[in-house]
Amino acid sequence: MAEKTWRVYLSGEIHSDWRERIETGIEEAGLPVSTSAPVTDHAASDDAGTGTLGEEGEKFWRDHKGAGVNAIRTQTLIRDADVVVVRFGDKYRQWNAAFDAGFAAALGKPIVTLHDEDTDHALKEVDRAAFGTARTPDQVVDVLRYVIDGKLPG
Amino acid sequence: MAEKTWRVYLSGEIHSDWRERIETGIEEAGLPVSTSAPVTDHAASDDAGTGTLGEEGEKFWRDHKGAGVNAIRTQTLIRDADVVVVRFGDKYRQWNAAFDAGFAAALGKPIVTLHDEDTDHALKEVDRAAFGTARTPDQVVDVLRYVIDGKLPG
Amino acid sequence: MAEKTWRVYLSGEIHSDWRERIETGIEEAGLPVSTSAPVTDHAASDDAGTGTLGEEGEKFWRDHKGAGVNAIRTQTLIRDADVVVVRFGDKYRQWNAAFDAGFAAALGKPIVTLHDEDTDHALKEVDRAAFGTARTPDQVVDVLRYVIDGKLPG
Amino acid sequence: MAEKTWRVYLSGEIHSDWRERIETGIEEAGLPVSTSAPVTDHAASDDAGTGTLGEEGEKFWRDHKGAGVNAIRTQTLIRDADVVVVRFGDKYRQWNAAFDAGFAAALGKPIVTLHDEDTDHALKEVDRAAFGTARTPDQVVDVLRYVIDGKLPG
Amino acid sequence: MAEKTWRVYLSGEIHSDWRERIETGIEEAGLPVSTSAPVTDHAASDDAGTGTLGEEGEKFWRDHKGAGVNAIRTQTLIRDADVVVVRFGDKYRQWNAAFDAGFAAALGKPIVTLHDEDTDHALKEVDRAAFGTARTPDQVVDVLRYVIDGKLPG
Amino acid sequence: MAEKTWRVYLSGEIHSDWRERIETGIEEAGLPVSTSAPVTDHAASDDAGTGTLGEEGEKFWRDHKGAGVNAIRTQTLIRDADVVVVRFGDKYRQWNAAFDAGFAAALGKPIVTLHDEDTDHALKEVDRAAFGTARTPDQVVDVLRYVIDGKLPG
Amino acid sequence: MAEKTWRVYLSGEIHSDWRERIETGIEEAGLPVSTSAPVTDHAASDDAGTGTLGEEGEKFWRDHKGAGVNAIRTQTLIRDADVVVVRFGDKYRQWNAAFDAGFAAALGKPIVTLHDEDTDHALKEVDRAAFGTARTPDQVVDVLRYVIDGKLPG
Amino acid sequence: MAEKTWRVYLSGEIHSDWRERIETGIEEAGLPVSTSAPVTDHAASDDAGTGTLGEEGEKFWRDHKGAGVNAIRTQTLIRDADVVVVRFGDKYRQWNAAFDAGFAAALGKPIVTLHDEDTDHALKEVDRAAFGTARTPDQVVDVLRYVIDGKLPG
Repeated sequence: MAEKTWRVYLSGEIHSDWRERIETGIEEAGLPVSTSAPVTDHAASDDAGTGTLGEEGEKFWRDHKGAGVNAIRTQTLIRDADVVVVRFGDKYRQWNAAFDAGFAAALGKPIVTLHDEDTDHALKEVDRAAFGTARTPDQVVDVLRYVIDGKLPG
Repeated sequence: MAEKTWRVYLSGEIHSDWRERIETGIEEAGLPVSTSAPVTDHAASDDAGTGTLGEEGEKFWRDHKGAGVNAIRTQTLIRDADVVVVRFGDKYRQWNAAFDAGFAAALGKPIVTLHDEDTDHALKEVDRAAFGTARTPDQVVDVLRYVIDGKLPG
Repeated sequence: MAEKTWRVYLSGEIHSDWRERIETGIEEAGLPVSTSAPVTDHAASDDAGTGTLGEEGEKFWRDHKGAGVNAIRTQTLIRDADVVVVRFGDKYRQWNAAFDAGFAAALGKPIVTLHDEDTDHALKEVDRAAFGTARTPDQVVDVLRYVIDGKLPG
Repeated sequence: MAEKTWRVYLSGEIHSDWRERIETGIEEAGLPVSTSAPVTDHAASDDAGTGTLGEEGEKFWRDHKGAGVNAIRTQTLIRDADVVVVRFGDKYRQWNAAFDAGFAAALGKPIVTLHDEDTDHALKEVDRAAFGTARTPDQVVDVLRYVIDGKLPG
Repeated sequence: MAEKTWRVYLSGEIHSDWRERIETGIEEAGLPVSTSAPVTDHAASDDAGTGTLGEEGEKFWRDHKGAGVNAIRTQTLIRDADVVVVRFGDKYRQWNAAFDAGFAAALGKPIVTLHDEDTDHALKEVDRAAFGTARTPDQVVDVLRYVIDGKLPG
Repeated sequence: MAEKTWRVYLSGEIHSDWRERIETGIEEAGLPVSTSAPVTDHAASDDAGTGTLGEEGEKFWRDHKGAGVNAIRTQTLIRDADVVVVRFGDKYRQWNAAFDAGFAAALGKPIVTLHDEDTDHALKEVDRAAFGTARTPDQVVDVLRYVIDGKLPG
Repeated sequence: MAEKTWRVYLSGEIHSDWRERIETGIEEAGLPVSTSAPVTDHAASDDAGTGTLGEEGEKFWRDHKGAGVNAIRTQTLIRDADVVVVRFGDKYRQWNAAFDAGFAAALGKPIVTLHDEDTDHALKEVDRAAFGTARTPDQVVDVLRYVIDGKLPG
Repeated sequence: MAEKTWRVYLSGEIHSDWRERIETGIEEAGLPVSTSAPVTDHAASDDAGTGTLGEEGEKFWRDHKGAGVNAIRTQTLIRDADVVVVRFGDKYRQWNAAFDAGFAAALGKPIVTLHDEDTDHALKEVDRAAFGTARTPDQVVDVLRYVIDGKLPG
């Protein structure tokens, strides 16, 4: 089964290093995984519309324009993905992460959520739609290693 | 076109009277609309799993069990809906509302979001996937009246 | 086969009486057809966004807002339709009519186009995706009568 | 994310050099993009049917035959595409461009429209279904660079 | 389960009374079945295009035009159907019957074929895609009675 | 929401009265539910093919013929269903019940499983694909009451 | 656009050299096309079931078994194909060719039919679902050259 | 047709060497086949959830957690597969094998079942949904050789 490269989309929080930790783990484990993600440069992401398609006077439409450009990337990569990992951090509302989860669920994509216990109750609907809930990036890597190689850690 | 009853799913916030206001508006406008919604009794919703399928020791699985039962209702009604209205209130994280929006978007359902301006930036991805953003329940009724009867208010 | 009410969506030109003529023909023929259409009041259609969701400063976004509200109606009714009739008149660009045709074609809906010969070459791609091209509203009625009752005119 | 080659379909106007300008921009930016397009040789496109499947007496069927052969190419490439760019020029009716946009929209493909401001009102339904509207080929390249590499120009 | 009316499409041969025999059997058995079919008046069917959309000079396009109008009916009714019965008679090539079977199969519709043993070998691919092969209209009625009421004959 | 009649398919074990108990519970609760099921008369079910489409010499093809006729019913009703309940009893292998669950899962239908604890481990994949696992028919009724009316028992 | 290899499925007649002629033409034209086809060894095709899965007493089931094995190949390759060419010869009923055409049509695959004029009337429904009708293998190659390279012959 | 690598998913029994025998046969036959399978290390499979996502107190949820992680693998690989082989052994209930078969059937994947005659009656629904039933791993290889190369054994 070495032929298949698994495409894993890493949705959600952009203010911590969880993606790097997963990618490092994947590399250390030698897994045939290709990761993708939304643009994680917060400033660039906010300017995605006006920085490409021209200035915008009103804040609402400025955001709208940016969200449209970002969605070209995110929807394409989610449709391409084999597995969607959705990370919820401690801060911010992260509604786009939950939106991505709903989008992926309706497409029948396997989802793994990644968050701490203190958001368990608020995330119960999203977790229910997921195939598993991880607490650490290492656990996500463990899941991917098992899913791809059939090996448990340790 | 009087024959069609439009099915409108009202997703999101369960701590204010926005659904009743929309339903009252629909009734006053005499629109052929059938509304549906998640269970809005917060306590019942939290006990949806244990109250039907038996007690559960751990909080995580208690929530999981409840979210599963609630999803039978919400996913069925969203799939049935012609239009999905998603309300975000001032409080709580409301990730399930954003999840519903993503789910509806992937199915190609027209979405109308309903929220105040102070959450505009945080909701920009969800608003971009919507066909319109309303600020008041009356505006949602106005949209439905126009969509169904082709009449603008006033 | 009397049980089935055929849903026919009438897309396109809003400045002539072709819809009324088709509807009159359907009635005279006693066909079990329920017609639907975009909002054909041009002024209302242009104000669909600002008249329901609030004023908008810029012309582009004013149109965008209106087109979003109109799309709730048109996309829902096209998805509901058994047959989509698309009318192209002599004036205006009518890109929305061609858009509707493409949308319907991708969903596998049978399309009937309705236009004069002088637009044949410009409409060749749309006509190719259609199941038939009519020159008059009466011909559309003749097609519907045949499709539903198996009877040819005269 | 270097692995993915993005497939971008360039629909619409065939009488200006906008495709070349986008392709040059993509090359200069070093983006992993594979572009495709309808046959842009106007004369060949008009003869697509009769030049391959034999002469045809009537103009309508000559066009019909040609449009069928062209549709083998366009529908296949649109279904293959990650992103569909739709260009509307100053001249001609370009209903096939709007048709392509509708076709792509129903398939859930991200669309970017490209046109001047003077067609904004006439194109409002198509623009609403798009994820963004560009005014110049360079802006399309900027969008692709951001979507693929997460980099804004300048 | 009395609520459900089963929609059964009767495709194929139009030169014998097999449809009437099935419909009589359904009526005698009191089954909640609504049947539909292509237009079975051979002359009308051949004139379906020219009789509604205007004369046509060439035989090929005359047939093409007619087949387009007929397809509005047949494709719509096959998509609507719960069960598709496909009858192959002794005469004619009946390629449209086999086409309908392939169309229904790709949509996941249960098919029942109806033909004599002497065409078994030629129809093996179609029969393989079917859920059952009947030899007489009465057997089709027996299948429907069992499928709907759970009762075997006799 | 009183308008919607929920269609619930009751798959699986045919040797106990669990369906009747669920139907009685639904009736007592006054729920707008229409139930459907495979043919539960074991002898009739085994003769479904030979009893309708003629005798068969070999046991394998006798079963094959019967399974084809039964599948017309079961696949149609599962596609129609809002909710699929799958019951596993103490005896028999009941592979068709697990098959139905897989079929429903791939279609995105909410599943509720119904079985005792001693089959938990063997059914873990099926239970994971379900939205909830019940131990008694009453619990299934409780789930349906909650899903439809938002009321918990007691 | 040199990157894309077009997958072309060649369905139908197995008693003439039309496939070889198309393949030779493709090679001479240097087109990036990968062709596939059903098993064209008639004897092998008839024994596909019994030759792999064991002898069968009855002719009907012998054919059924063979058709099942053949369908693994044909349905997979049709689903994989960009374009489906369907050839009808002078002899035999070739219902499987028409079945393939219906199957491909329901999946939205572009179809090109290939047959002589004397079968035009009998094939009108199949031709209507096709994007073009060719009379010679060379014309099929001409269509592919145009579709892929945009070049007309001569 | 040498280009296509056929992806074959081997579902079911994990306590005998049938997968190795099929893989050896594929290799000896030089077939372009890439096989995949669930994790066949029974102990690892049972610990798939707790070994990656953390310990779990209750047996039911321990299984649930493991089944979720296993389903990421199995559902992804079944969706990727061209052909799904489902093996039922003499022991255990193997409901997951039947579930996989139902899942694959609803997706339109060709299925080959592999089991002894003594389970024929119990597996009749699953066999009916399959394109063929094999008795030995060698027969599966024979089917694949024929499907890919058009060659019968011997």
